[in-house]
Amino acid sequence: MKKILNDPHAYVDEMLDGLCLAHPELQRRGEGGRVIVRRGGAVPGKVGIVTGGGSGHLPVFLGYVGEGLLDSCAVGNVFAGPRMDDCIDAMRAADGGAGVLQLYGNYGGDRMNFDMAAEMLALEGMQVASVRVADDVASAPAAQREKRRGVAGLVLVYKAAGAKAAAGATLDEVAALARKAGDACRSIGVALSPCVVPESGKASFAIGDQEVEFGMGIHGEPGIWRGPLKPADALADEMLEHVLPELALAQGDRVALLVNSLGATPAEELYILYRRVAEVLAGRGVTIVRPLVGRYATSMEMAGASLSVMKLDTELEALLAAPADCPFWSVR
Amino acid sequence: MKKILNDPHAYVDEMLDGLCLAHPELQRRGEGGRVIVRRGGAVPGKVGIVTGGGSGHLPVFLGYVGEGLLDSCAVGNVFAGPRMDDCIDAMRAADGGAGVLQLYGNYGGDRMNFDMAAEMLALEGMQVASVRVADDVASAPAAQREKRRGVAGLVLVYKAAGAKAAAGATLDEVAALARKAGDACRSIGVALSPCVVPESGKASFAIGDQEVEFGMGIHGEPGIWRGPLKPADALADEMLEHVLPELALAQGDRVALLVNSLGATPAEELYILYRRVAEVLAGRGVTIVRPLVGRYATSMEMAGASLSVMKLDTELEALLAAPADCPFWSVR
Repeated sequence: MKKILNDPHAYVDEMLDGLCLAHPELQRRGEGGRVIVRRGGAVPGKVGIVTGGGSGHLPVFLGYVGEGLLDSCAVGNVFAGPRMDDCIDAMRAADGGAGVLQLYGNYGGDRMNFDMAAEMLALEGMQVASVRVADDVASAPAAQREKRRGVAGLVLVYKAAGAKAAAGATLDEVAALARKAGDACRSIGVALSPCVVPESGKASFAIGDQEVEFGMGIHGEPGIWRGPLKPADALADEMLEHVLPELALAQGDRVALLVNSLGATPAEELYILYRRVAEVLAGRGVTIVRPLVGRYATSMEMAGASLSVMKLDTELEALLAAPADCPFWSVR
Repeated sequence: MKKILNDPHAYVDEMLDGLCLAHPELQRRGEGGRVIVRRGGAVPGKVGIVTGGGSGHLPVFLGYVGEGLLDSCAVGNVFAGPRMDDCIDAMRAADGGAGVLQLYGNYGGDRMNFDMAAEMLALEGMQVASVRVADDVASAPAAQREKRRGVAGLVLVYKAAGAKAAAGATLDEVAALARKAGDACRSIGVALSPCVVPESGKASFAIGDQEVEFGMGIHGEPGIWRGPLKPADALADEMLEHVLPELALAQGDRVALLVNSLGATPAEELYILYRRVAEVLAGRGVTIVRPLVGRYATSMEMAGASLSVMKLDTELEALLAAPADCPFWSVR
């Protein structure tokens, strides 16, 4: 295992310590310090948005706690869901009296613990809504969208829902908007090499020296095919072939677009991918608004990239452009 | 070679195409399009700042062209200096009539071409000054500082000099400030794994599965020692032992600090390093101002990290805090 760490079992807690030292606008809370909140606490009268998930995906999940984005995050071990108690603490920390939206990626462990936390807090009288983002088209067919996993598209949904909540919308309105944003978003990823999970010291999956896995999930979940690595343009074309059909884009449509590195893949190569994606969309008369190219949802040092496309209406476009600020992203 | 690209020889140009498509505030100029400028062009009456260097280091170098930062950048092939003609075009593009500062890292090829470009444009009547940043303490002893290479500390110097120029200082003042900022900055890096240079298809260096090279340069230049990877805290302590002495920090001093990934090393591990660095500096009564933790100067998918520390006076601290904006970094 070739990673910069001390005790592999302290990886997450030492990371959280460093994060909060570097960004004092974030604070650790909860038993064990596995809840990240904004220093100012919940905003009275604003719908709170809580997320959560396993570690090892920075900036996802906790990195999007900030102004115009999320209020709190329950933090699990690397690639493991947060504990139910941390989900509860995160929800309490996000509650400004106008209700709390649970907004997270569709993974089994996260879902179970967030569901139990929601039931318990509803009994105490908290208004709770829940939206799971399931943007990874490679993880299940369109007819079974509820089985799809959430990947980098989650970031765009955070942004839209965060702006809606910041604008003073009710819990029902923020939840409806988050659902709309998730429904408008599709993603797919390609993996070139694994990452090493600190606690096991083992690679998250094995792959040949010249191979790519097309459609692989961010924890190494099986994709659509595995074979020799193709040129960037061919990869981009095939990614678009999987992502675009369900969005039914027409000439004149506008989309938000995220070309995301899974970790090791450098920015240079993301721009080579973006070049082709932009060319294809321009050819169809589709306008890309505020493209994001960078590391927005990773698996530590995994090599590979993902593409997320969100079809915009006027409301989504305005919400994505609203001011927001967190340690990893700022929109002005 | 496992990289997302088309033709290895088109790596840089396709990257530049994608970059300018994603960030229309940047434009390609010059014969061959190897000069990156701000769309608005030179700012009349402002000192222009030009940089340049090899590709494969995003966001360095061209990524720091932007408001309150740099005016233009001459772009070389991967790990190769820019051509003299591109240095000349970049300088012309940066010239708003108040003179041009060449501000770049201390590498032989870059130096030669920038020197020749400066001579030619001085003959045409352009006011030119030149400051080379040489912050890598591992690359030569203190007595031979002029031989040291420039690494990630360059980013902090860009920021300070860019703010000085934006504030309306003269060429002499901006050059003096850039020199002061460079003199106040020291860096060191550790490398865990190489990157692959697209044109050769070969790794930039070889290193054992359990080894680290302490003090290695960003192109794989030899460091101080090579041996088994140490725990993060021990690495941080040893990096500080090399970086701090020349800065002669005393209790009450304030520093800017950058914990930088060379590419593949994930943000999680940068925060584990930052945790220890912050602890050590706090123990000495030194305050870290606006720490930067992330990917600011990379070697594509190389694994490793660097630490840069700049000792601040009131002027440097204010300049680092001044507003700035480029595709990869924004200060508000």
